[in-house]
Parts: sequence; structure tokens; C-alpha cells
Amino acid sequence: MLQPPPAQPGMREDEVDTPALLIDLDAFEYNLDRMAAVLAPTGAKLRAHAKTHKSPVIAKMQIARGAVGQCVQKVGEAEVLAWGGIQNILISNEVVGSSKLRRLAALARIADVAVCADSLAHVEAIEAAAADAGVRLPVLVEIDVGAGRCGIAAGPEAVALAQRIAGSKHLRFGGIQAYHGPAQHMRTVEERRSLIAGAVDASRRTVEQLRQQGLDCPIVGGGGTGTFAIEAASGVYNEIQGGSYVFMDADYGRNKDENGAPVSTFRNALFVLSTVMSVPGGGVAMIDCGHKGVAVDSGMPHVWKRPGIRYTGASDEHGKLEVASESESPKLGEKLRLVPGHCDPTVDRHDWYVGVRGGRVECLWPVAARGAMQ
Amino acid sequence: MLQPPPAQPGMREDEVDTPALLIDLDAFEYNLDRMAAVLAPTGAKLRAHAKTHKSPVIAKMQIARGAVGQCVQKVGEAEVLAWGGIQNILISNEVVGSSKLRRLAALARIADVAVCADSLAHVEAIEAAAADAGVRLPVLVEIDVGAGRCGIAAGPEAVALAQRIAGSKHLRFGGIQAYHGPAQHMRTVEERRSLIAGAVDASRRTVEQLRQQGLDCPIVGGGGTGTFAIEAASGVYNEIQGGSYVFMDADYGRNKDENGAPVSTFRNALFVLSTVMSVPGGGVAMIDCGHKGVAVDSGMPHVWKRPGIRYTGASDEHGKLEVASESESPKLGEKLRLVPGHCDPTVDRHDWYVGVRGGRVECLWPVAARGAMQ
Repeated sequence: MLQPPPAQPGMREDEVDTPALLIDLDAFEYNLDRMAAVLAPTGAKLRAHAKTHKSPVIAKMQIARGAVGQCVQKVGEAEVLAWGGIQNILISNEVVGSSKLRRLAALARIADVAVCADSLAHVEAIEAAAADAGVRLPVLVEIDVGAGRCGIAAGPEAVALAQRIAGSKHLRFGGIQAYHGPAQHMRTVEERRSLIAGAVDASRRTVEQLRQQGLDCPIVGGGGTGTFAIEAASGVYNEIQGGSYVFMDADYGRNKDENGAPVSTFRNALFVLSTVMSVPGGGVAMIDCGHKGVAVDSGMPHVWKRPGIRYTGASDEHGKLEVASESESPKLGEKLRLVPGHCDPTVDRHDWYVGVRGGRVECLWPVAARGAMQ
Repeated sequence: MLQPPPAQPGMREDEVDTPALLIDLDAFEYNLDRMAAVLAPTGAKLRAHAKTHKSPVIAKMQIARGAVGQCVQKVGEAEVLAWGGIQNILISNEVVGSSKLRRLAALARIADVAVCADSLAHVEAIEAAAADAGVRLPVLVEIDVGAGRCGIAAGPEAVALAQRIAGSKHLRFGGIQAYHGPAQHMRTVEERRSLIAGAVDASRRTVEQLRQQGLDCPIVGGGGTGTFAIEAASGVYNEIQGGSYVFMDADYGRNKDENGAPVSTFRNALFVLSTVMSVPGGGVAMIDCGHKGVAVDSGMPHVWKRPGIRYTGASDEHGKLEVASESESPKLGEKLRLVPGHCDPTVDRHDWYVGVRGGRVECLWPVAARGAMQ
């Protein structure tokens, strides 16, 4: 059951029911514009990752600012985007199982949908599903650029797999997927540069070997919010897959720039609004948002603009705040904004975005692909 | 948008699309029966916690086996249960904010709905909402029995608050809420007994002082899956609020009995079925279920009945399996059951339960109150 929205347009922010997923629309639009501006001189295009926002509404705003399309991780996410009018979608992931592959092939009739593979078995299964549906699917080879997750070895192994794709009747070689996840969250510029240098080398080498075999790489894709400027400047990557940049989170806020200051390219645009539900005293206040409402896999949320208050413990439906002795305790019923530790899974807990500007609710958007995990 | 179900009745388990939330119906029914059998001789009644299952279907099964009703944490959960035909509901939590209190008061016209308070401000706000709606609401005093979360001090402070409730025109004193959360997850019997002894003492003292003031305690509620037998045998608690017992999880599996063996009262009945999506080699396999599909706040999931395989890392949509050198690696496309680290938030990630028995899908039930966080 879709939950009823926690707000109505026109309400004041302090009237929004809680916990609620807020978008600060000014900061959000700043982030959309800023990514477009940073990428413009590089020649690399944005293919924003919808695993973060799960919303055709936001996808359209990214595309209006120059994004070539969207990435997703799941067939269910691709369906929601395609049904919402998004045309160009890459599943930046392996898709396994006949049920999912049938859905993927069916979707190819209404949108341009590409998918990744890192083994011959994947390629054969995708070919069978595409043949069965009478469609032709672009398939990218995912290479392991150091993340140690999915991906075939860069170089000859990747080239051999690309040749199998290119030689399959119902497939088309779509390029390479070369994303380095852990690099996104390395705290120093040096660590991020070092890891992405390896990813760029592996990608460049593979692209060159593919060309030697007569295979062009329409997409060389990767890069996230933590490292995208490096990939974009590499001359190798032509598509950037940043997702979190639209919202940011406490974890990305711990990345440092060359001067050791927090990276300030993007602004915090995503919050979970919560209500103080009990003030037992002793420097403690309880709020109505635990880890069912805000993800804690990348650390606890921050309390926005209340430096004396720390969110120190999350149970399912309760958050524990500790108040510094010199700070004023929040009051029963007071509403506080939390900056999520990790934006992607936080969004996936909620059914509605509440867009706010100047202290008032301006819009409600469904988190349309929430829970689309198959 | 409600996601489409990942299965159909009659399918084989290995045909279920993944990630999917499975109930092993034999183990689940065993757990339902077992709780009823353990509580029967104690005189304490079950008021099972629907924060775990979020399903009127499961609530009805618990009530059919003797439960007096259900607990919830949120007004939205109470709505889903009441709309699904459940009559007797306790919100075992403080409810703050006029929007929620209006919904609570409205719900009182179709169900018996009680709520907790731990301050005079709560009592006054509930009285105002009940008066406005023309209903009479039972209110329990939540006392802090050592959990250090919400709750007023046991004894005179709790009695004074109860008197305020009893003296409010549109309220009725419903009893005391005396739940000790952290005690549930203490690993040794001695630790659990010691903490609950304190909770029992605080509750007994408060009940006696209430009686001295002429206030009877219809409900003395608390106890969870880890400690319920202690509260049930106390002679003080008359309602037990266990929730996780229907499913169990890896975290509860770490609780030990008097002999140092895992507590074996209940069986693992909840699983997340996942598919091997990439086998990069080197003793590693990747599955299609990360922390968007299985909660990791209480530790990583276990791989069911595959002792040589450990789930060692969760990203949003990927789980990393490490395979012991002497064990056989799972195959691409193979489906594996995960035992969630924590059942409650895992359930809250999914739209559907897939009930399986004897290797086949027997039923689909919606997780009707999934995301009902307001």
C-alpha cells in the first residue's frame, strides 16, 4: 500500500508530518545546475544514477540540463523510469534470471535499455531473452577497475566478451562499465586520484584493445559523486554516473578537498524531518525517526544547523539525541531536520518527497521506484 | 507505487524472483503455536508487536491463538491494522503532533486504540484531540525501566501522571508500558534476568503505588522475544509484546540459554531469497541483495544452510559472499536464502511476503503497513 503523503502543497515546513523526506528545492536545483556546469567543459556527459532518487520527475530535470539518460541498478527501476517517459536507460549491473530478462526485453519496445554483463553465461542468457522477444539489446561489458565487486578483468578478457556480444544476433556491443565504488568515499584527494588513475588506465587499455579489434565503445561509463571530475577529465570516460550529487549526505560530507576542507561542490538538499517525541532530561531527547526512517549503514545522521545536538543512537522507530551541556535542549514537539548518513537507502525507505522552499511546501513527488528491488 | 509481487502461488521456490521476502510457513506456524504454548500456563497474554510483521493477516493468526490484540509504534501502522479488521491496538509509544493525534482520535471510532504518554504535555495534547473528536482514549503511562529511551520515572512521578490521565474527561487510564529494549539482545541468561529483574521491580512498585491511589492497571505491558518468559513469570506483567518471535533473525540467534547454547524456543521463519549475479572467482560471489533488501543495522545476514559461505559486505544492491577454500562456490543464477540480521527493518524494505512450504509458493501477503512511519 502506498502511504498517504505527509504534507500538502502550501503548508509551512513545521506543519509537515514526520518522519518525512524533505528536498530543499533551492539546494537541489543548485546541485542540478552545478553538475551540468562542472561537466560542460569536459566533454563527458552525465548519465545520472536513478538508484539515488528513484523518480522520473527528477530524471527529467537532469535530462533537461544535458544528461544523456539515466542509470539504474534493477529492472524494476528501469520499468518505473520507462513508464514515466524516460527514454535512455542503462542498467549498470548484471541482470540474472529468466523472469527479469523477459521484463528487460519487453521494456526494449518502449525505451532504449542497455544492460551489463561480466561473463559469457550472462551474454548467452541475454541473447536468448532478446531473441525470444524479437528485440535487439545493447550490452556493456562491466570491467573490474579495482572495486572488487562485479566485473571481468580489463584487457583481453573484456575484449573477448565484447566480441561475443558483438557477434550475437540480438545484441549490440554498448561499451564498457567501469565504476569504482569504494573510491567515491575515500577521504583525501590523493586516495581518490590514485584509485581512479588505476580505473582510467584499465579503461583506456581496454578501449584501445577493443579498437584494435574493430570494436568502438559507444559508452565508457563510471564515476560517482566522489570522483566524477577525475573520470570526466580523463579523456577516456564519456559518461558520468553520479547520483548522490543531487542530494548529498553526511558520508559524502566527510570527503576532503586539496586543502583538507570538506568538498563543497554540492549542497545538502535532502533531509528527514523529525519530531521530538520525548524529553526525558539528562541531556537526552528522543525523536520519532530511527533507522526505519533514515539509513545508518554509513553512519548516524547529523542534526542540521544544531551544532550542540548529536544523533547518537538509532533504534527502529526512535532516534536518540544527546545535547551538549551548554546547548539548549530541543522542546517536545519541535521539528528537526536530519542530514542522512547515506542518501540512497534513506530515499528508498520513503514513499514521498516533500519539496520545500522558503519554509513552505512547494510540491510532492512520489518516490516512484521505492522498493523496486527485483 | 506498490511493487508487483515477485512470485505467484504454485511456483517452485527457485522460480521466485529476487530479492524476495520468504516466510517458511512451517517454521512460522511453529513459532505462532510455540508462543501460545509457552504463555498459556503463565496467565500473561500476548499482545504481539506488529512493528515486526506489519500485516493484518499475521495479526489475525496471532489473535486466533490467544493474543489479546496488537502493539504498533506508529499511528499509520494502527490505521492499517484497524482498516484490516484488528480491533484491539496499543500504540506502545508517544504520539506527538496535532495531525497524528487527529488521526488517532478518528481511529477510535472503529477500533479500541490506546496510546502511551510520558509527560503532562502529551496527556494534555491527547485530551485536546480526544475532546475535539468526541471520543475517549485509553492512555498508558510509559515508565523507564532501564532502557534509557522514552518513559517517565517509575513510582510517584508515574502515579502523578496516571492521576492526570484518570482525571481527564476524554481519557481513561490504561495501565503502564514497561518495555526494556536493550535487555532483549543481552547474550547471557544472567544479563537478561538481571535487567528484567529491575524492570519487574520498577513495574511492581508503580502498580502498588497506583493501587494505593485507587488506580487499577488494566495493562502492565512489556517483554520482547529475548526476555518475555521472565516478564510473563513475574506475576506483574499481564501483557507480553513480543514481535520478532514469529520470524527470528541472526541477531536473536546470538542469544544464549543457560547452557551457553543458542536459545532454541523459536525457529528461523524469515528469509530473503537472493540470486548469485556474478562469480568473479577468488572465493568471492556477488548476490543481488544488498542493504536495500536486507537490514544490516544488527549485523550481516547469514547464508542459510551453507556453512562455508559468509555474507561479508553489503552495498546498496550487492551482497558480497566469501566462500571458504574447501567449500563449493555458488553458481551464477543459484538462489540462496539469507537469514536477516534484523527482521523488523528487513520486512519494512519489502512490499510482499512470499509464503513457502515444501519448496512451493503457497501464498502472497502484502506487507500492508510497510513504510507507515508517520
